[in-house]
Amino acid sequence: MSQHRKMWEELGLDLELHDQLIENQSNLHKKTHLSQKNRPKSMERFDNSFHASHAERVAEILEYRKKGGKSIGTFCIYVPDEIALAADVLPIPLCGGSDWSVSYADKMFPRDICPIIRSTFGMAFSNTCPYKTLKDFALGETTCDAKKKAWDLLGFKVMEVPQKKNPIDRGLWLQEVYNFRDMVENLSGVKVTPKKLRETIKLVNRRRKALQRINEFRKLPDPPISGLDALLVSQVALNQDIHKFIEDTEALADELQKRADSGLSAYNSDGIRVMIAGSPSPMGNAKIHYIAESSGLRIVIDESCTGLRYYRDLVDENQKDLDGMMKAVADRYFAIDCSCFSPNTERIDSIHQLVKDYKVQGVIQNILMYCHTYNIEAKLVENILKKMGIPSIKIESDYSQEDVGRIRTRIEAFSEVIKESS
Amino acid sequence: MSQHRKMWEELGLDLELHDQLIENQSNLHKKTHLSQKNRPKSMERFDNSFHASHAERVAEILEYRKKGGKSIGTFCIYVPDEIALAADVLPIPLCGGSDWSVSYADKMFPRDICPIIRSTFGMAFSNTCPYKTLKDFALGETTCDAKKKAWDLLGFKVMEVPQKKNPIDRGLWLQEVYNFRDMVENLSGVKVTPKKLRETIKLVNRRRKALQRINEFRKLPDPPISGLDALLVSQVALNQDIHKFIEDTEALADELQKRADSGLSAYNSDGIRVMIAGSPSPMGNAKIHYIAESSGLRIVIDESCTGLRYYRDLVDENQKDLDGMMKAVADRYFAIDCSCFSPNTERIDSIHQLVKDYKVQGVIQNILMYCHTYNIEAKLVENILKKMGIPSIKIESDYSQEDVGRIRTRIEAFSEVIKESS
Repeated sequence: MSQHRKMWEELGLDLELHDQLIENQSNLHKKTHLSQKNRPKSMERFDNSFHASHAERVAEILEYRKKGGKSIGTFCIYVPDEIALAADVLPIPLCGGSDWSVSYADKMFPRDICPIIRSTFGMAFSNTCPYKTLKDFALGETTCDAKKKAWDLLGFKVMEVPQKKNPIDRGLWLQEVYNFRDMVENLSGVKVTPKKLRETIKLVNRRRKALQRINEFRKLPDPPISGLDALLVSQVALNQDIHKFIEDTEALADELQKRADSGLSAYNSDGIRVMIAGSPSPMGNAKIHYIAESSGLRIVIDESCTGLRYYRDLVDENQKDLDGMMKAVADRYFAIDCSCFSPNTERIDSIHQLVKDYKVQGVIQNILMYCHTYNIEAKLVENILKKMGIPSIKIESDYSQEDVGRIRTRIEAFSEVIKESS
Repeated sequence: MSQHRKMWEELGLDLELHDQLIENQSNLHKKTHLSQKNRPKSMERFDNSFHASHAERVAEILEYRKKGGKSIGTFCIYVPDEIALAADVLPIPLCGGSDWSVSYADKMFPRDICPIIRSTFGMAFSNTCPYKTLKDFALGETTCDAKKKAWDLLGFKVMEVPQKKNPIDRGLWLQEVYNFRDMVENLSGVKVTPKKLRETIKLVNRRRKALQRINEFRKLPDPPISGLDALLVSQVALNQDIHKFIEDTEALADELQKRADSGLSAYNSDGIRVMIAGSPSPMGNAKIHYIAESSGLRIVIDESCTGLRYYRDLVDENQKDLDGMMKAVADRYFAIDCSCFSPNTERIDSIHQLVKDYKVQGVIQNILMYCHTYNIEAKLVENILKKMGIPSIKIESDYSQEDVGRIRTRIEAFSEVIKESS
């Protein structure tokens, strides 16, 4: 029995089912990412991190916890990493992207809710999630109805993300950020000091800057990295040790710079430049990205929580005292333009700007099924794009592979529409 | 051309489509409510109010507005009527319950959102809603993802209902109630004075007390009013002039008292006592109620916004000054145990108590399709009922008549389960 299998057994995993999950995910990764030509060599690092997410990374966290380290499970990019890290608490984002586990959630959850929740808890319920016992508590938030009520059902702690961006909402959010500080301090017994928070603000900003560097290359006429690979980098960002991630990402960025200098493209042929907008694609799910790029499109920007929303805004590093820093952290997260806000005009403005900055010729609105907020907001996105003369298509889908053919047909037709309108 | 047809034409309605809608609704009402034996005579008043909702009631509001009266459209029982009325503004709840109009919403909204939104805006988009122009503005709220984002799309004003019930949320809600006061004062130019607010608090409480009186009779071993009719009373409460409603409802209550005194039941035969819990059933929709009662069940309590949640809590009438009254109003609405809250333990406790008070033998969880909050919370409801030994069934459905047969089969099987377990 290999070392990892021993670890999985110790963690209480159902080894047989877990093998199926791993095989399923590896095969998919092979078919999608590894089948690309012209990949940057450094993408190997991220392929490895993808495979390590249930193996070496788990061993790392297990080791960390055995030494007394504390960790929490999270499900949304609204949970401020800086504050957790400043209290020596490791935040572990747990959103699942695997179709394989979805149906295991049916004993607890309705089928007509978003696949992120079903995939995540399908893994937990089927004993194939190695992170299940690797946390001191799970922390949900209130960014959508289905997640909000899932936390109630599971008895998780919840951070309240308000629904508007008025001054009183900002006040509520700041208090929630302080409450979060108290939560992690109580967990680890480590005080969030100005010195420590200053360090973690800079550290998490470095991760964002590394991602910004990667994504900046996608503005080039011939992007040296594919959309599929850029997504993988973002997905790995959520799982990997932050220092290792920054190192790998900077190495990739250096390689991309060289490729850009020598005009080396990630793509074999010309292709239409598209944006993916809407719902996130957690690790394991790259379905729409794969269909689009294997249909000859180039995804040059991801307007999602596994894209721009994760790295766009930095926390102000110029605050002197703890309260100033706490407010800077709160403000940075409050600036995220999730569709949970009413209204969410910042998002519409951002999409308008991104189309220009990335020379986008068409937009694919990637809406996870039953995600009401992105699904309804899609009409506002469509409207602004129409005004700009940019064709868009809305694809509602889950993680399943059953509708791949139908989506491919729609995307191919969409390509023709863009060609005609360009 | 009749007087009402002239009015509809003036209001810009599509007369032909509107005729279809009215015919559809009348036929349904005939088939469901009017087919009941042993109805209280006073239910005629409510049948008339049902028919008047697109006719005499519209004429009344039109007349009121012609004389300079102000009105607003609302979509949720969180909007405090007391405050609107104290500023001489008439709140008109606009939630649609008609299946007929649902598909007309498709040009703007996804199909996989709740039928309330689709029905309501289907009427507006098909020019069959006479209330469309009978308001100065529409006021939405943030109680669910689909409604919240619908308001953004339609550019409506929005009242923020927070997602938790912590002190800071209570503060936010109180501010929203003050903002609402400012909105209606600005609209009408009429100040909300302590004297006026004291009056409207008492008036709206009287409506609640009248509803409480009706529903109290449903605790009897032989309820003198059916669940189908009790629902109609609640539905009419949302549309009718408040004074007329109180008068009609008190008259009905007096009749029910007589029926109760002489042991006159609304039902022909014995039947199992059930609770309907979950999503609301706006006027036009009584589908689950009809199926259940025509399958021999007795609905003795509605745990919904078109039931208990609308009338259970009174506003404290003992406050002396304006701020005290405003807070009393805010507190009353904040006590509503909508599934939008996380956690929502008050609702679970309430269901526990209702089962005892109404001698409930089984619970039908009536979940409008794609209503994530009630759908997921259903598991917590199921759990508490299981602990109490009370069978429950969850029915996810929309307004369409297509699944009536399937639901009837399920409800019949459910009756057998209850009989066996009782």
